[in-house]
Amino acid sequence: MNPVVVVHGGGASSISKDRKERMRQGIVRAATVGYCILKGGGSAVDAVEGAVAELENDPEFNAGCGSVLNVNGDIEMDASIMDGKDLSTGAVSAVRCIANPVKLARLVMDKTPHCFLTNQGAAKFAADMGIPEVPVEQLITERNRKHLEKEKAEKGAQKSGCPENLGTVGAVALDCKGNLAYATSTGGIVNKMIGRVGDSPCVGSGGYADNNIGAVSTTGHGESILKVNLARLTLFHIEQGKTAEEAANLSLNYMKSRVKGLGGLILISKTGDWVAKWTSTSMPWAAAKEGKLHAGIDLNDTTITELP
Amino acid sequence: MNPVVVVHGGGASSISKDRKERMRQGIVRAATVGYCILKGGGSAVDAVEGAVAELENDPEFNAGCGSVLNVNGDIEMDASIMDGKDLSTGAVSAVRCIANPVKLARLVMDKTPHCFLTNQGAAKFAADMGIPEVPVEQLITERNRKHLEKEKAEKGAQKSGCPENLGTVGAVALDCKGNLAYATSTGGIVNKMIGRVGDSPCVGSGGYADNNIGAVSTTGHGESILKVNLARLTLFHIEQGKTAEEAANLSLNYMKSRVKGLGGLILISKTGDWVAKWTSTSMPWAAAKEGKLHAGIDLNDTTITELP
Repeated sequence: MNPVVVVHGGGASSISKDRKERMRQGIVRAATVGYCILKGGGSAVDAVEGAVAELENDPEFNAGCGSVLNVNGDIEMDASIMDGKDLSTGAVSAVRCIANPVKLARLVMDKTPHCFLTNQGAAKFAADMGIPEVPVEQLITERNRKHLEKEKAEKGAQKSGCPENLGTVGAVALDCKGNLAYATSTGGIVNKMIGRVGDSPCVGSGGYADNNIGAVSTTGHGESILKVNLARLTLFHIEQGKTAEEAANLSLNYMKSRVKGLGGLILISKTGDWVAKWTSTSMPWAAAKEGKLHAGIDLNDTTITELP
Repeated sequence: MNPVVVVHGGGASSISKDRKERMRQGIVRAATVGYCILKGGGSAVDAVEGAVAELENDPEFNAGCGSVLNVNGDIEMDASIMDGKDLSTGAVSAVRCIANPVKLARLVMDKTPHCFLTNQGAAKFAADMGIPEVPVEQLITERNRKHLEKEKAEKGAQKSGCPENLGTVGAVALDCKGNLAYATSTGGIVNKMIGRVGDSPCVGSGGYADNNIGAVSTTGHGESILKVNLARLTLFHIEQGKTAEEAANLSLNYMKSRVKGLGGLILISKTGDWVAKWTSTSMPWAAAKEGKLHAGIDLNDTTITELP
């Protein structure tokens, strides 16, 4: 089986030219990390964890360092991961002061009888696993501090409706043995209420992976994604015989028409077909397959280069 | 449209004769409460909230008062609710010291721009909404204290595999206007880790409602239900033309074969067909439609009586 990895850096409305270039570099780096893991014989689960951790460490993206701030100016993060071989999954919600929520989600999957730990319990588990606590200041960027100030000034706290900046990061992978996996990680929505959980830790919404069908990671307005179970919905279309592209378009358009939600998704089918689609203005993404790297941010700006 | 309500009191392995009678009374009371709301012109959302709150207040069921204890001897509860009209949904996870998590989930749906609040943030929101704090001792029953002791003595903490007692409570309803809704509430799994979140607050797993398809509330091994997105999976079978009974059997059997998970579900289709199905040994359930009350706990023990 030819390994494939696809990553995304979240749906977004408007990105400055400078930042766009940094995001492109970050997303390409993450795809390359994931692809190297797969080419080295690593599993799909290892690849998505590695790619997403790379994006969490990059302050340009809304996950890990660079997460948006909640109404209190604090960071609470959600993440999940899934192994399509046996549907095992791990997730965390509202975790604070750790660098890589995706790694904690992986530990929930591998080291507990559970699938999902939240907030204080997740923090206790992280400490038990020896994960170092990181001061929140280390995760907060100046850009996000200003972003929260602007949001509060412009619209007041806890506004309703669909926000414009819809960041999440995610990865899907198919390994040499035909195993599929996904991982998704996010800081959520700027100015969110304390304890707000989005779609990212909810398997079926923030992502889904099943070796018999495909793997999906989603991004966009979390509340809308939850309402339509975007990831699983997309895979049901695949099960009904749709192509990866048709399935992505069907489920994203359904989310737009039924609940007025914008977003994007990356998908790999069990046969290795892949797609990156979005209804938001833009979505940084990259895909690596057969030695080639495909990447883009806006519609019709895909570049294809040779992987080293 | 003829209103319909179906309720369940969780999957279970073995129930004593005495307790069975108390459970039967409780489940019939909850169905009657839900049906009265519907007959009085109340919405499907009001009916499922009312029926589930009734079961949360009944110490025989694993939700609200009567919730099972976690590894620390504490109670952390999950709940969710969904309106099939516009797919709006509210959920809470790992909430402590409140009597009715389902009512808090309803407030998340109605009073915030979010769908899901967890732990400390959910507690803050509850306080802001004026929901009284209840001492945890008021929610803990002697039966559940003994249950935790027995579990710890027999199997040690954090065992893996599928537990035998799989309690959750839930309701689905169809109102006179053709609106569907579900609500699910639970104390989770005995001896669970702190912060463990099950399927109940995750829309698509613990339940789903869509006026165009049907409404489902699930119960059983939460980790298995999450892995297969049991509620949404069942409704996909309905969308593919299966009957309510066929859809329930297909998805429960799939969960059993794919991830070795046991459970049960209640379902109402948009045309008012309903079913209660389980793969666990028993599941207390009751359904009210056209003035008749159907109820049962074990296989083939359904009774049908006239509603007052």
